[in-house]
Amino acid sequence: MFILMMECLFDEELCGDKVQRLIPGELKEELSVLDEELKKAVFTRINLVKNPLIEMISSGGKRLRPALLLICARFGQYDFEKVKPLAAAVELIHTATLVHDDIIDDSPLRRGVPSLQARLGKDVAVFAGDFIFCRVFELLTSLDRFDILHRTSRVMYKICEGEIKQREDLFNTEISFKNYLYRIRRKTALLFGLSCELGATITGAPAKTVRALYQYGIRMGTSFQLTDDLLDITGDEKKLGKPSGADIREGVITLPAIIALKTSPEKEELRHILQKKNRTTDEIQKALYIVRNSGGVEYTRNLAEIYVKKAIGSLKDLPDIPMKKVLINMSEYIVKRLL
Amino acid sequence: MFILMMECLFDEELCGDKVQRLIPGELKEELSVLDEELKKAVFTRINLVKNPLIEMISSGGKRLRPALLLICARFGQYDFEKVKPLAAAVELIHTATLVHDDIIDDSPLRRGVPSLQARLGKDVAVFAGDFIFCRVFELLTSLDRFDILHRTSRVMYKICEGEIKQREDLFNTEISFKNYLYRIRRKTALLFGLSCELGATITGAPAKTVRALYQYGIRMGTSFQLTDDLLDITGDEKKLGKPSGADIREGVITLPAIIALKTSPEKEELRHILQKKNRTTDEIQKALYIVRNSGGVEYTRNLAEIYVKKAIGSLKDLPDIPMKKVLINMSEYIVKRLL
Repeated sequence: MFILMMECLFDEELCGDKVQRLIPGELKEELSVLDEELKKAVFTRINLVKNPLIEMISSGGKRLRPALLLICARFGQYDFEKVKPLAAAVELIHTATLVHDDIIDDSPLRRGVPSLQARLGKDVAVFAGDFIFCRVFELLTSLDRFDILHRTSRVMYKICEGEIKQREDLFNTEISFKNYLYRIRRKTALLFGLSCELGATITGAPAKTVRALYQYGIRMGTSFQLTDDLLDITGDEKKLGKPSGADIREGVITLPAIIALKTSPEKEELRHILQKKNRTTDEIQKALYIVRNSGGVEYTRNLAEIYVKKAIGSLKDLPDIPMKKVLINMSEYIVKRLL
Repeated sequence: MFILMMECLFDEELCGDKVQRLIPGELKEELSVLDEELKKAVFTRINLVKNPLIEMISSGGKRLRPALLLICARFGQYDFEKVKPLAAAVELIHTATLVHDDIIDDSPLRRGVPSLQARLGKDVAVFAGDFIFCRVFELLTSLDRFDILHRTSRVMYKICEGEIKQREDLFNTEISFKNYLYRIRRKTALLFGLSCELGATITGAPAKTVRALYQYGIRMGTSFQLTDDLLDITGDEKKLGKPSGADIREGVITLPAIIALKTSPEKEELRHILQKKNRTTDEIQKALYIVRNSGGVEYTRNLAEIYVKKAIGSLKDLPDIPMKKVLINMSEYIVKRLL
């Protein structure tokens, strides 16, 4: 969904004028300069991975995190040269996580091209992901800002904790709502929050503004992940670009299922299926059916909407620069997609 | 071999008085304080990995890299509190690499206890390794030294390149001597060099001293890896604690084999075996036999000795503090073990 939203934000053909008008041309230009920066950042002389890394980083992704960073940087004294390494860093953190995620999920594709692990094997992909992580730090040390390095490394280890937490919670039908929120905060929302925070910090925005934008990012990121989890249950395979029900297949228990496990009349059957390590296709379809027809869908949609409203609420005391409207619209688009 | 050497350096029972006298008690005390620091560094609230990480970091390893760092720090204005996070960082870098190495090698054991991947699965081990990497940076940002952060992140991505290079070179019987040296420098020697360099840098040793100690570390690390590669060919399984020939089994072509591929009368048979992806036990034994009886063993031993002499040579202009003798003895021990 979010990918579609971003396509909408950046691709005129897909979305028409309304949203497109919100994105200033300068942001698009900066994002293409950033593409070059990203290619430089993953450059290595090791032939085995040289081209695969460049092709992977060039293969798209909507650069959502750097876009947020570039937008939030407008709340301070904007200087693209200063902001650029940070914008590259947040995209690289995201990319390194994806490379390691693909190893775990055994994914053949990433962003429509063969994943690194499919192309080069898991062995190489492990160290290729590490290589990208290390490049993040090399990039960050080019800035003379310990506060930024400290915040980034803290967020990075928490993201790893979120990924581990997701594995800890696999097949666990007792997982609580609180636990789920803790997991998606670490796995997803923190990097959104960090992107917003770093953009505002590096351009010297006032502390209050930095805090508000961080909060916006966390809330928007939470809503993003809630929506992602919901679309995996309710989504149209054509729109998703992959079969729905991937989470259930992999044993990942998300909010719609957590609520269904409490409220559905068929909760015992659902529990039975979700606890099994090997499910038949029929069982997955049955579990999807139960969750889709439970209060879990409505509950998750409501919560995603609440987080979007909270995200917009975080911006209320910020100065009315043009980019503020872009942030609001980006959030509202999430709600629209869900309705 | 190096493990035995370090046991000799730190364990009185194993090695008698001679070497033991070289290690001052204060270093041993510092290394136990460091153990606590390492446990703190890998602490997480995620139950799945909390104890496994603490147990892994406590399960030993000879703390060779932090020991080198603590020794080299004596060439400046020594201050353990300042040095401690760096000593922890180099051990953590090493540990993170081992965690990811074990995933690749499918190793059931590490330091005599089940490896993280054997205990928790590869999925968790990927992110547990990432978690340790990120903690390194968190630790380093507690120091107010960008030069150190920059050097460390550069070495870290080069180590990843070395690991990738090793995979690139698998089963490649055309690998050159130069290529091999490039690989072991990145994979092993750079972290030895960095450990020595950081110790001297943080305590403000003169630039010339820092350079000399870095060079010592690089050369000692090169000799260490040459010896390791040699012992995998010639070593006694009992002493190694694992079957010899692991490199040949995994397709890693090391210097003894590179030389044998050029000089052995049976080089064509050797080439044929080393290029095969699936070798029988008999073929592995045959390849080992050919390499053992080639000039490759002698050549590698000589080169390891040359690097030890070069390492000691790097120290010649340094002040004669007591720890200098420890560095010399550590290097000489490598030669002794080979003779």
